[in-house]
Amino acid sequence: MKKYSYSYLFDFISQVLQQMGFSEGDAAECARVFLAAELRGISTHGVIRLADYYKLWEAGRINVTPDIRIVHESPSTAVMDGDGAIGMLPAVRAMNTAIAKARTAGTGWIAVRNSSNFGIAGYYAMMALKHDMIGFACTNASPLVAPTFSAVPMLGTNPIAVAIPAGQQPPFVADFATTPVTRGKFTIAARKGEKISFGYAQDAEGNPTDDPTAIEHGGSMLPLGGDREHGSHKGYCLGAMVDILAAVLSGANFGPFVPPMMSYLPLLEQKSGEGWGHFFGAMRVDAFMPADEFKGRMDRWIETMRNASPAKGHEKVIIPGDPERENEERITREGIELIPQVVADMKMIAEKAGIKFDG
Amino acid sequence: MKKYSYSYLFDFISQVLQQMGFSEGDAAECARVFLAAELRGISTHGVIRLADYYKLWEAGRINVTPDIRIVHESPSTAVMDGDGAIGMLPAVRAMNTAIAKARTAGTGWIAVRNSSNFGIAGYYAMMALKHDMIGFACTNASPLVAPTFSAVPMLGTNPIAVAIPAGQQPPFVADFATTPVTRGKFTIAARKGEKISFGYAQDAEGNPTDDPTAIEHGGSMLPLGGDREHGSHKGYCLGAMVDILAAVLSGANFGPFVPPMMSYLPLLEQKSGEGWGHFFGAMRVDAFMPADEFKGRMDRWIETMRNASPAKGHEKVIIPGDPERENEERITREGIELIPQVVADMKMIAEKAGIKFDG
Repeated sequence: MKKYSYSYLFDFISQVLQQMGFSEGDAAECARVFLAAELRGISTHGVIRLADYYKLWEAGRINVTPDIRIVHESPSTAVMDGDGAIGMLPAVRAMNTAIAKARTAGTGWIAVRNSSNFGIAGYYAMMALKHDMIGFACTNASPLVAPTFSAVPMLGTNPIAVAIPAGQQPPFVADFATTPVTRGKFTIAARKGEKISFGYAQDAEGNPTDDPTAIEHGGSMLPLGGDREHGSHKGYCLGAMVDILAAVLSGANFGPFVPPMMSYLPLLEQKSGEGWGHFFGAMRVDAFMPADEFKGRMDRWIETMRNASPAKGHEKVIIPGDPERENEERITREGIELIPQVVADMKMIAEKAGIKFDG
Repeated sequence: MKKYSYSYLFDFISQVLQQMGFSEGDAAECARVFLAAELRGISTHGVIRLADYYKLWEAGRINVTPDIRIVHESPSTAVMDGDGAIGMLPAVRAMNTAIAKARTAGTGWIAVRNSSNFGIAGYYAMMALKHDMIGFACTNASPLVAPTFSAVPMLGTNPIAVAIPAGQQPPFVADFATTPVTRGKFTIAARKGEKISFGYAQDAEGNPTDDPTAIEHGGSMLPLGGDREHGSHKGYCLGAMVDILAAVLSGANFGPFVPPMMSYLPLLEQKSGEGWGHFFGAMRVDAFMPADEFKGRMDRWIETMRNASPAKGHEKVIIPGDPERENEERITREGIELIPQVVADMKMIAEKAGIKFDG
């Protein structure tokens, strides 16, 4: 597999986006989010997605000069309209607004409508850290997940991210879909001719299945918990909360009405709002206690968990954010690996855009 | 089993609490929370707990005349000190403060320290509903749950409750522990001589187990997800988030330092703060969009999910809060059933308190 430096890919993505009509600043903003996913080892949300956005743009479904604006607000809240933008732009804007509101009101909470896929939720939650704030980010997404006792997908994998600053220790960063695993595991299993674990998916009638192609045949992913016996109704509650905060509260499409991110899928006939929805939050730590005192307490929390006696066969208890931070250190040093399919996609885009990609 | 009317139990609990030294108003406040659990069918958090609190009070571990006060605040936040109270009192006070702050700032977020077990989280989240607000409530609890790859319990079952108002439809009310099931299932299985499902618990070395007595032998409950393959690290993230918001941010004891609620268990030698911690939130719906518009959208969300095609063998998709509301209608009509053990406990308390209990 070919490896690329951060700066090479940053320049390439920025150029592609500028050629599509994005301003230099907006292009850079998006490139940073794509590459943050790569560095954190979440390549399913990294450069591979550029081709999807490019095709959406070709289909006229992305507004590259959006008028992103606040349409309703209070001292600690706002609703923002993304004007059909690529998700990263309203997301960064909304998180900055949440941080600004938290400065004066203690906390800031922004619901966004008329947006699209924003990449990794953790990027936005982590924006709060350097301000000594706790950050939250979540988003709805196209329907893939069946609520408890539903035969059909009604919710997205609706991820939740929370970033909490510490002192000497690295920050606590949780960023997870409200499903047991990502859909990517299904694709990999199908390609290898393997089964998936029970508890990940159901067939078109709602029966448990280990078939990795279940979704293509009318099946659904299952919420975190897997089956009712193991608390899947709690995973469904989480996905539903995200959908309601991100979309019902903002005026975006919710549940089964969320439009597809793939240009080859037709837009839905029915709507329940505008575009995708996100929800962001920032809480100033010193709206609760002096920031240094809190960060010292977080250090002790992290050290307490890290030093818990490990289960047999394991080396240590993981702190949320540890694996991604270790990836980031390694990948920054070694370079970003792109699989051949992504390299081929980038060459295709480069050719269309009249620029170069070293593949 | 014997059945009691709401008003009979309300009067009894109020009298017991007043005899312990609570004011008439505080006693009524607590009685309402105990009985809300019974009506909603969550009897594990209902009248059965009165005996635990009574014994804690006998052991001098409950302050019946607490000076509950705000110790730090901003326009949308506060930290409240519960002064060693029974959990219901600072919880109701904190939720009312969250609602008051939301009126002026759009949202209100209150972290509580120096409290104790507060009963069902859903009670407090639901207090927001009549104000056309979205309510949140969560709490930490004594350690029972092992973080991913830990051999030992480090977190409580740390429940999360969210209540969201609708228009014609009943409200959305999610209230769930961040574990696959409650510990009560272990007790029932042990009594019947049955095994528990894998994915609920691990033994003292951290191996998966189906032994319902695992916890008594140094084992732990597992987080929502059950095992790593099914996303238990996500359940661990949720429980950790609750612990950090409720306790690190408030100045309460976190993780393994949370003191026991059972009077026969010794207090821990080490502390990381004061008492138990809770976290509450209220968001004014019209800080985002006109309340009627939001409630109409929630109706459509609920109807959309309710009308999803049900999985084979099931009648309908459940909306969070439906089962508890159906319980409430039935139990209000039929009366509150107490199991013989609870009746015996109440008679014991009645005798000590010099009042009557009809058993």
